[in-house]
Amino acid sequence: VPVSLPGPTLGVVGGGQLGRMLAEAAAPLGVETVVLDPTPDPPAAPVARESITAAFDDPDGVAALAARADVLTFEIELADPDLLERVADEAGVPVHPRPETLRTIEDKLVQKRTYADAGIPVPPFRRIDGPDDLRAATEEFGRVMLKARTGGYDGRGNLPVGGSDDLDPAAALEAVGAGKGGAMAEAFVPFERELSVVGVVGDGERDALPPTETVHREEILRETLVPARADPAVHESALSVAGAVLDELSGRGVYGIELFETPDGDVLVNEVAPRPHNSGHWSIEGAVASQFEQHVRGVLGWPLGSTALRCPTATANVLGDVDVSPEARLDGVEDVLSAPGAHLHWYGKREVRPLRKMGHLTVTADGMAGSDETAPEAVLARARELRDGLTFGDGTA
Amino acid sequence: VPVSLPGPTLGVVGGGQLGRMLAEAAAPLGVETVVLDPTPDPPAAPVARESITAAFDDPDGVAALAARADVLTFEIELADPDLLERVADEAGVPVHPRPETLRTIEDKLVQKRTYADAGIPVPPFRRIDGPDDLRAATEEFGRVMLKARTGGYDGRGNLPVGGSDDLDPAAALEAVGAGKGGAMAEAFVPFERELSVVGVVGDGERDALPPTETVHREEILRETLVPARADPAVHESALSVAGAVLDELSGRGVYGIELFETPDGDVLVNEVAPRPHNSGHWSIEGAVASQFEQHVRGVLGWPLGSTALRCPTATANVLGDVDVSPEARLDGVEDVLSAPGAHLHWYGKREVRPLRKMGHLTVTADGMAGSDETAPEAVLARARELRDGLTFGDGTA
Repeated sequence: VPVSLPGPTLGVVGGGQLGRMLAEAAAPLGVETVVLDPTPDPPAAPVARESITAAFDDPDGVAALAARADVLTFEIELADPDLLERVADEAGVPVHPRPETLRTIEDKLVQKRTYADAGIPVPPFRRIDGPDDLRAATEEFGRVMLKARTGGYDGRGNLPVGGSDDLDPAAALEAVGAGKGGAMAEAFVPFERELSVVGVVGDGERDALPPTETVHREEILRETLVPARADPAVHESALSVAGAVLDELSGRGVYGIELFETPDGDVLVNEVAPRPHNSGHWSIEGAVASQFEQHVRGVLGWPLGSTALRCPTATANVLGDVDVSPEARLDGVEDVLSAPGAHLHWYGKREVRPLRKMGHLTVTADGMAGSDETAPEAVLARARELRDGLTFGDGTA
Repeated sequence: VPVSLPGPTLGVVGGGQLGRMLAEAAAPLGVETVVLDPTPDPPAAPVARESITAAFDDPDGVAALAARADVLTFEIELADPDLLERVADEAGVPVHPRPETLRTIEDKLVQKRTYADAGIPVPPFRRIDGPDDLRAATEEFGRVMLKARTGGYDGRGNLPVGGSDDLDPAAALEAVGAGKGGAMAEAFVPFERELSVVGVVGDGERDALPPTETVHREEILRETLVPARADPAVHESALSVAGAVLDELSGRGVYGIELFETPDGDVLVNEVAPRPHNSGHWSIEGAVASQFEQHVRGVLGWPLGSTALRCPTATANVLGDVDVSPEARLDGVEDVLSAPGAHLHWYGKREVRPLRKMGHLTVTADGMAGSDETAPEAVLARARELRDGLTFGDGTA
């Protein structure tokens, strides 16, 4: 397929940090980015060509985005698949990944069923329509993760149930917001390690970034490490399971595929995001082509880039550690700037909130040269240590 | 020095490709960029927070830039040092590099004298005030490079004199535009190789990127290769001469220092640019911190990043190869996108002109893994081959 520059304009539903890093990756490729976000001046705005302020489900807003763009994509699952499909048809602009993928993924029960029906290994799960279903699930599985079927994000909408300190089933369903779209419960699987694979889908080609080891706490990603400290056979299984997942989803771009590695070395699918994923941010410095560049290439139908790992790489998320503050101010940044091989990524969010993703930092082993500690463990330890030195001020100093 | 985010806003005089790549590097660091350029919607505009349209010497324009910025810098030597100094004083905003550096550098005769007076090796040169001076210089040195003292850029304002096919001296002076600010003539030195060093100046610290081998044709940079294929002693001399140059200039940021390596292995200073330099573009993928990131850090007085080389890296400039065309369109890009380890940088210029810098591409050895040809020569050959496959269409197809 011949490619000429300047490239098409990419319209992105969502203007958060993923949209920002997409715009940063698109510019060198000769691709301009227009984002749509309900927040005025969202994180992507300073580096995007234009930012349209509208709700994700605002027909006029999405139509305005399509009018400005040659290809549409999204950086958030809250994008509205029906609206995207209709507007794209009317404007004659393709959407990738395909809206049907969004429909499959936005409902966690439908998503899990899709994988299970295809014979892809997933933890046992049940549909939960009321307190009785939840009671039955905890009797069957013991501890479960109760999840709202729709609208959850970053651990919101998820609640562990089945321990000694539990809410009663009705209150638990209320707490996850199951009233809106229903709920599901998933058996807790004891896992050795959490992994993620960023799958990359182009025009008639497919690839994946090397499996990433992910560390969560309170359902929120804290750190990543590549290469993952798992056996080669587990790496193989992770890539193979990720490929099977991609077979069930349609449309080009990157997909963040969250996995569990069991103590037996089996790999189960947790959840999939049809967009660049927090677990793939290491690829900006650690892979030949980043997940954001791959998403741009894939969505446009351009040849995919190389997924080769440049060197062991770790990231640590910088999360809000204070209560609501009128203005976000991150202190202690000088230590990150001084650390060889450390790279800072600030998302430009104005307000800090508890556990909100405000930025991340990346440490590459080749940048640590001079220190002899370039084993993956050392890279991860350095990333953690640097992140832990950062604190949010109260914006008053 | 404590550093907090969000960072200061950087005001940049000039919004060309260097401003664009500065903005791309500043965003992840939490630094927003405002540029000033006489061209509406210049290359930096799509990725900058704001673009002010004004001449470089427009007092109101530069005052508006200072009002929007916390620190001022420039990406073009045509910035006006007196105006920058006055506006910065009035607005209480620092400028880096310092305006006096711009004054030293904007006049090529003053610049050369500064180095020569400091004992830094430079090719022999003479001040040229008229045809008689030029005749005397060619008698003394044989072939010389005649240069307008001010206003030259990318080979414009330079003319070789002293061969058989020469203009007469008066016409040569007319051709380089010597009427405005006078001229100088520099002896042609036979050189083994051209090199460049990007010097990096921070707050009380100084460093340099590894010496870069540069290949020019018709006075315009075509390719770069790192590591330069020169003896270790020459690398040492290049870094040492670059350090001596930095001693003569003041203010933080990066400096592109062009050098000649003589057949005896001596290193002479050609010219210096007090800004990110075309010869340092390889550092985006090939160094731990790019020259653009280093410039942002340096200008802000933040700790400098690591200058370590990640792997052998080459760049090839994509220059306009057609006559004026209403719209630039680069064809054949699919082959660059498909080449493992190749990275594309499009500058977003609307119009293609002969030999205009429209973009560049970078090839890193680690991205070529799989091929066994990761010697520097192979990386350079790949970069050239990929660049040579690109052509500008006439914008009508």
